[in-house]
Amino acid sequence: MTKYFTEESSVETVNARMGEDINPRLREVMACLIKHLHAFAKEIHLTQDEWDLGIDFLTKTGQICSDERQEFILLSDTLGFSMLVDAINNRRPPGATENTVFGPFHVAGAPERKMGDTICLDGKGDSCLFEGRVIDLHGNPIEGARVDVWSDNAEGFYDVQQPGIQPKWNNRGIFVTGADGKYSFVGIKPVCYPIPDDGPVGKMLGQLGRHPYRPAHVHYLVTAPGFQKLVTHTFVGDDDYIESDTVFGVKATLVAPFERTVEGPQMWRSPFDFVLTPV
Amino acid sequence: MTKYFTEESSVETVNARMGEDINPRLREVMACLIKHLHAFAKEIHLTQDEWDLGIDFLTKTGQICSDERQEFILLSDTLGFSMLVDAINNRRPPGATENTVFGPFHVAGAPERKMGDTICLDGKGDSCLFEGRVIDLHGNPIEGARVDVWSDNAEGFYDVQQPGIQPKWNNRGIFVTGADGKYSFVGIKPVCYPIPDDGPVGKMLGQLGRHPYRPAHVHYLVTAPGFQKLVTHTFVGDDDYIESDTVFGVKATLVAPFERTVEGPQMWRSPFDFVLTPV
Ligand SMILES: [Fe+2]
Ligand SMILES: [Fe+2]
Repeated sequence: MTKYFTEESSVETVNARMGEDINPRLREVMACLIKHLHAFAKEIHLTQDEWDLGIDFLTKTGQICSDERQEFILLSDTLGFSMLVDAINNRRPPGATENTVFGPFHVAGAPERKMGDTICLDGKGDSCLFEGRVIDLHGNPIEGARVDVWSDNAEGFYDVQQPGIQPKWNNRGIFVTGADGKYSFVGIKPVCYPIPDDGPVGKMLGQLGRHPYRPAHVHYLVTAPGFQKLVTHTFVGDDDYIESDTVFGVKATLVAPFERTVEGPQMWRSPFDFVLTPV
Repeated sequence: MTKYFTEESSVETVNARMGEDINPRLREVMACLIKHLHAFAKEIHLTQDEWDLGIDFLTKTGQICSDERQEFILLSDTLGFSMLVDAINNRRPPGATENTVFGPFHVAGAPERKMGDTICLDGKGDSCLFEGRVIDLHGNPIEGARVDVWSDNAEGFYDVQQPGIQPKWNNRGIFVTGADGKYSFVGIKPVCYPIPDDGPVGKMLGQLGRHPYRPAHVHYLVTAPGFQKLVTHTFVGDDDYIESDTVFGVKATLVAPFERTVEGPQMWRSPFDFVLTPV
């Protein structure tokens, strides 16, 4: 190997430059990144103009980021990278509820509500009863599980996207299971919504011939001592976008029933059990 | 293939989402990018914490970018990606002068000077005579070649980095060859300098156990009708950083002689011929 950079030895040359006393995991991750990044440029014969476009895209993606806007997460999401990292790190045994993307709209500290309470505070949308159990892989109920739920309102916005318009903690709440593992609350049948698409990622989606929509879903963060943290959604199966979620979050096992109710105060009922995996 | 995203089919699922009527080259580049990006995450088993760090790094890299600062180019440069793209797009026949990175400090519109003129306007540094010929692959002189040269001053800064301190167009000029293909000008023996290292890329270099220095070099942009544009440097061979250029710009053939002069007004002489490749 020549001591200078060449097209052929580019990966080895760059990686050999790392110092001896650095974090070993950092060394491993960077070496792997350089390998794949260089392989990409070589395989596609990336042109100088394409490199310019790439630099410009990354720059604009960074510059639009703020405390309220995370365009790089949108980029990772829309390239399937967020789902891939989630999948790699949350391989679950058969029967366990699967993970999906966390998303940017969770807010810590939602109010703990009584079982059966409503989380819909703006009175909009199709009322829906959500109920089921939190259980282990053998079907035994898990006591003391915290079911943290959040969803958009009937217009497709989370409360944090419309401060001053939606009531605080609208369509959010935490429910703690008792000895029977059961949970239930009243919310709305969620609706589909587009991810923010007025920035570089939205423009990219347009150029790729892709829409920016996520199919209707309800977010859950379910935790219980002795079990793996479950970050997931339930999805509405007949949504127009169920097979084309722009962030690739849908899994077949997460499509929940949404049944019309014949009687009772709610229009819909969506039963779903959360099956937690031991740590 | 399932219609939903899975770890195994992640690449195919994401790439199948592209529309039918998009730019075919964009489709090809994106498909290749997704393939290598996902392969990286899978091979290294990227953790959620590492993903968080990556998002944060990219965000900060974008946010520091401004009209005067291009941190993503620094990132590309320090990962050897800029040199790789340059190499892929500028494969030259044996004997032709090789390309290297353009760098961020070229300024269009430098004054055209008379052969033999000085470009050093601040009177600092070791005076050096640069001379040679612009020739074709057969050694024939090229008439009307434009030799656009720029270099740092004796303190390691380009004029544009010190507006109001250095004279405008300090250590810059354009020289146009006559029928003999010869060029000559008086500048200074350049000095090494660090790339801007007070941002995310500098922090990254520190964590990788790398320094931010470039070995001493003079930039050239040489153009002539009928020949490929040559973007290159000549390097000072005995520089401390000649084997560890932080942007990997050094090539063995670009290390130029810097000879002490026995007599004459200059302390140094650096002969170098530019051999252009036909288009
Ligand atoms: Fe959501
Ligand atoms: Fe330079």
